[in-house]
Amino acid sequence: MGKTYRAVEITKPGTVHLIERPVVAPIAGQVRIRVQACGVCHSDAGTVEGQLPGVVYPRVPGHEAIGQIEEIGPGVTSWQVGQRVGVGFFGGEDGTCETCRRGDTAYCQNPIITGVTSDGGYAEMMIAEARALALIPDELKSEDAAPLVCAGITTFNALRNAGRAGDTVAIQGIGGLGHLGVQYAKKMGFRTVAIGFGPDREHLAPKLGAHVYIDAKAEDAGAALQKLGGADVILATAPSGAAIASLLPGLSVRGKLVVVGVSGDPIPVNGVPLIFGGRSVIGSLTGRAIETQDTLDFSVLTDVRPMIETLPLEKAEEAYRRMMSGEARFRVVLTMA
Amino acid sequence: MGKTYRAVEITKPGTVHLIERPVVAPIAGQVRIRVQACGVCHSDAGTVEGQLPGVVYPRVPGHEAIGQIEEIGPGVTSWQVGQRVGVGFFGGEDGTCETCRRGDTAYCQNPIITGVTSDGGYAEMMIAEARALALIPDELKSEDAAPLVCAGITTFNALRNAGRAGDTVAIQGIGGLGHLGVQYAKKMGFRTVAIGFGPDREHLAPKLGAHVYIDAKAEDAGAALQKLGGADVILATAPSGAAIASLLPGLSVRGKLVVVGVSGDPIPVNGVPLIFGGRSVIGSLTGRAIETQDTLDFSVLTDVRPMIETLPLEKAEEAYRRMMSGEARFRVVLTMA
Amino acid sequence: MGKTYRAVEITKPGTVHLIERPVVAPIAGQVRIRVQACGVCHSDAGTVEGQLPGVVYPRVPGHEAIGQIEEIGPGVTSWQVGQRVGVGFFGGEDGTCETCRRGDTAYCQNPIITGVTSDGGYAEMMIAEARALALIPDELKSEDAAPLVCAGITTFNALRNAGRAGDTVAIQGIGGLGHLGVQYAKKMGFRTVAIGFGPDREHLAPKLGAHVYIDAKAEDAGAALQKLGGADVILATAPSGAAIASLLPGLSVRGKLVVVGVSGDPIPVNGVPLIFGGRSVIGSLTGRAIETQDTLDFSVLTDVRPMIETLPLEKAEEAYRRMMSGEARFRVVLTMA
Amino acid sequence: MGKTYRAVEITKPGTVHLIERPVVAPIAGQVRIRVQACGVCHSDAGTVEGQLPGVVYPRVPGHEAIGQIEEIGPGVTSWQVGQRVGVGFFGGEDGTCETCRRGDTAYCQNPIITGVTSDGGYAEMMIAEARALALIPDELKSEDAAPLVCAGITTFNALRNAGRAGDTVAIQGIGGLGHLGVQYAKKMGFRTVAIGFGPDREHLAPKLGAHVYIDAKAEDAGAALQKLGGADVILATAPSGAAIASLLPGLSVRGKLVVVGVSGDPIPVNGVPLIFGGRSVIGSLTGRAIETQDTLDFSVLTDVRPMIETLPLEKAEEAYRRMMSGEARFRVVLTMA
Repeated sequence: MGKTYRAVEITKPGTVHLIERPVVAPIAGQVRIRVQACGVCHSDAGTVEGQLPGVVYPRVPGHEAIGQIEEIGPGVTSWQVGQRVGVGFFGGEDGTCETCRRGDTAYCQNPIITGVTSDGGYAEMMIAEARALALIPDELKSEDAAPLVCAGITTFNALRNAGRAGDTVAIQGIGGLGHLGVQYAKKMGFRTVAIGFGPDREHLAPKLGAHVYIDAKAEDAGAALQKLGGADVILATAPSGAAIASLLPGLSVRGKLVVVGVSGDPIPVNGVPLIFGGRSVIGSLTGRAIETQDTLDFSVLTDVRPMIETLPLEKAEEAYRRMMSGEARFRVVLTMA
Repeated sequence: MGKTYRAVEITKPGTVHLIERPVVAPIAGQVRIRVQACGVCHSDAGTVEGQLPGVVYPRVPGHEAIGQIEEIGPGVTSWQVGQRVGVGFFGGEDGTCETCRRGDTAYCQNPIITGVTSDGGYAEMMIAEARALALIPDELKSEDAAPLVCAGITTFNALRNAGRAGDTVAIQGIGGLGHLGVQYAKKMGFRTVAIGFGPDREHLAPKLGAHVYIDAKAEDAGAALQKLGGADVILATAPSGAAIASLLPGLSVRGKLVVVGVSGDPIPVNGVPLIFGGRSVIGSLTGRAIETQDTLDFSVLTDVRPMIETLPLEKAEEAYRRMMSGEARFRVVLTMA
Repeated sequence: MGKTYRAVEITKPGTVHLIERPVVAPIAGQVRIRVQACGVCHSDAGTVEGQLPGVVYPRVPGHEAIGQIEEIGPGVTSWQVGQRVGVGFFGGEDGTCETCRRGDTAYCQNPIITGVTSDGGYAEMMIAEARALALIPDELKSEDAAPLVCAGITTFNALRNAGRAGDTVAIQGIGGLGHLGVQYAKKMGFRTVAIGFGPDREHLAPKLGAHVYIDAKAEDAGAALQKLGGADVILATAPSGAAIASLLPGLSVRGKLVVVGVSGDPIPVNGVPLIFGGRSVIGSLTGRAIETQDTLDFSVLTDVRPMIETLPLEKAEEAYRRMMSGEARFRVVLTMA
Repeated sequence: MGKTYRAVEITKPGTVHLIERPVVAPIAGQVRIRVQACGVCHSDAGTVEGQLPGVVYPRVPGHEAIGQIEEIGPGVTSWQVGQRVGVGFFGGEDGTCETCRRGDTAYCQNPIITGVTSDGGYAEMMIAEARALALIPDELKSEDAAPLVCAGITTFNALRNAGRAGDTVAIQGIGGLGHLGVQYAKKMGFRTVAIGFGPDREHLAPKLGAHVYIDAKAEDAGAALQKLGGADVILATAPSGAAIASLLPGLSVRGKLVVVGVSGDPIPVNGVPLIFGGRSVIGSLTGRAIETQDTLDFSVLTDVRPMIETLPLEKAEEAYRRMMSGEARFRVVLTMA
């Protein structure tokens, strides 16, 4: 009789079951991972609630998975059994679309998306593509590493590609993404501005590394940024197009508004500050496996860690609810005993 | 009794007079130009109709002025009497704002704007800052040079900064700006796509150099661009935020939507193509004097000329009306006998 | 009894034989090509004369191969039998080195190099990796396409990545690489300067598109470039470090000296012009398959063709000798009946 | 009877006098500064020993000058009496050369160079151009600020323009420039490698922030860098072309070797690592006034300070001797009582 493992399966949108599944062997190019921790991300809603078109059910969500390699499929030479690895949103590029042929694999047009087109990390085991893995440095606990392979890389990559040391960089939204973004911005040598909505984050912001805190509920954040001389970069993490657009006038000349989260409403960009300041609005989407590696290495090098709550796998529904409601401080990570 | 010259003066918004003015001497850093030709631009409406806040009246509009230097003010060493020069939208940087101190003078925060904060070229003479001048190559007629110092540099600069030879570059709107943009794009080695609204420009487009014509009235332009493989750059010249935003899905991965004209409505940017393609929306505003020089030199080197209608200075109101109504093919240039 | 094909085999350095070889089937990821034309390149000497360490003999040289796909190996989905394709210097990336993981596959640390680590195109048939192919546009004859997949991409890629339309771009050396570089530079909208050594190329240069010709034998080329205002980009194709370094003072501020050919002597870079002008010396190496595609497409779009001599495969030794001696005008292409 | 101040005057190359000079008033665009501290830099030798062609004597050296504004010339509106300011190597751009017209004022073709074309800071007073000033933050002592306006900006600017957070960045030479470079690199979020010559700096390097120390006397530094995965950026401060060139193979693919100091011998660049890795050798020269401001602000933000020795103005010759001999740890600053 074969071995089994437990997994949180979305049978159909809105229907969650903790089930037993048979353990399978990895095929060519794949590895099987014994999952130790998996972060819960807002975008898991795409799978759990079916907001994303094209998800095939049943499906195991989770794209912040950390665990140990248990078995290696044929042809995998870069990884070994026993290594601790992580896999994020991008589960693997197709390698043949034009974008991949141009080397821009993070924007592959037909990607495997962990927890969306393949089963993810809300489980004791998962199968992953070898080319999608990053090695977890010994200095990182698995539950701390989990949010770094999605929330971490998303903010890390966006920031290092947009700013230059000494720049004024603002992070809009001090939540799951933003509390990492503020830490990274500080460690990259940016004058770091945290933009919250209300006074709740005012005490936390300097502890994360912010040099300045702006309460966007109490004052116009764009105007407040201009009083500081204008932001060279604003990393927008708030899920509101209108809120994002309101920051545009807070940019310095040639400033960049970098958007990493899809909001329900479009971003109504005003042409006047855009054109008269040579400003830009730029989309940025996580990154490839080696950039996840960069994120993990940088986090160790500069001592950045997420603020997390942990819950065991069987409390996945509670974990999910705490993330979606915004109660979590700031990421919930499922742990597998 | 002093000499006089004729000028089209906007006494107050909406009130136009052809008047005689006394000739004055240039002060330090300035030159006086005997104007030979001045193009009419859509943005002249800011002065003529008072749409722009802060214009002080009376004011002579016109920021596509070409003429001969007649007199040089104290301290001007780079220019000589008799040289034929042009002056565009940017009439001079302040040199002391932070943007200027960073060398980004085209985006000076307190610029002189020709025809807005200083008197422009709807006149037989004008005063200009020496640092705002470009030399007109002998190969260019003054009436042909006129649109190049505003419509020309605006499209030339935006295109050369956004694209790389071999890129697919689309020009939205085949009018005053776009008919130059298509020519420049072709001469920069771009696969050039002209996007018009309706079939009128279909025959003209290939003559200007377009390899492909898309009729945005007959088909979805974004989808049509994707059928071509996606545009690396789209230069948006249409005065409609909604129309501009509709092109975003037509960009290739990492593609750039470059906006050079302010529209009445904001540009409603959809976060999905923005983020999932690493795309960007970028503002671009004319350029500095030496970039006007680059534009003129490039136009001679590659044989780009505007399509113009000419009218004498005294028909300035008719010229203005033809531009604003969209009747002109494609720029109207005032000529001074 | 199996079929055979003829190939020019280097048995050991300096020993050339025209032999019959058995036709083999492509393995996974490969295709077999019936070669129609293959250019001879100076760097073939690495294989023919054994200048390159690590070549395993016997080996068929030739990395400018054009032909028709005859058979497709397992798993190849992007290509079909009957398509006309080209394969250049890079025969395929390993996909797993750090450079590949960063998407910079053209600089793979363990590449297949056509005609060096795998058999090349001096033959009636060859095996190639599917991921290394470019499709030949119908407009191009096979013998014209051949030099484009190595000499073409090398100059095209270097130029489009270094310059911006309107720049002054100089091409040093009007030979196999340079006669293509001048044509591309012109079609990219550069003010194009051809630098030859002696007066021989003076009449040819403007026909290729050069706006200016400098005879580096008759005058100091760096000084001559400064008289033109300085070059924004110099593409150095001459096989002499000393000659390359002598051009550095001819660059404008922030100018780039792009080096595409390895010379026997190092390039003795003078720190004064380097530092006081913020100048740079940059290496550039051909490119990946899709960039070969870009080169071919651009050549059709802008009507760039190489100047070639053709010889049948059995005259490979004569072809090779003509290239190495510098007699050829400017590339020799082997044709297979 | 007019007031006087003391200054160290180089009467002719090699001849140093401490003299009294009459105080003069600043002319238009200038300010007079009461100097509080002035660093001694290796490039002062150009003036002191006459190595630089074109210095007009007598001349006061010193381009790391910090002091208080005492009097303001006509037309200066950005600065006020009493402000504490610094002036570095660049004493002011001409504003009219092509480089300035392109906004690249740090590379002005006819610059004022402090202590070379105008009198510098080895004095109790000096005249400076208002546009060349940076404001000294209150947090910085004048003697600490002094080296930052030359050694500081030179390394800060080179590093922030070449690297991206998370990059591996090596600093060659742990002396006057390098001990600041290592600190900046660390604070910019780079994995920082210090390359010294011998074991002397091995203990200091980690205190400055280096993660790794390489002793270039004991091992091949390029090979040592490759063992670390290759450097994305190497900042070369050693005054030896041969030593600089030896590092090129230590760069990662696309890595940049940034050169900030002129050496007596040329840099013999090997084309193989240059081309086969797409690597580059780039010159970088201090920066403009606002970049000095950026340097000072960053130093306060991230707590970077130079290691200095101070000596009173009258010991200028001793100070100079200590710097040139390499005895100083690491900059000598003259202080004016």
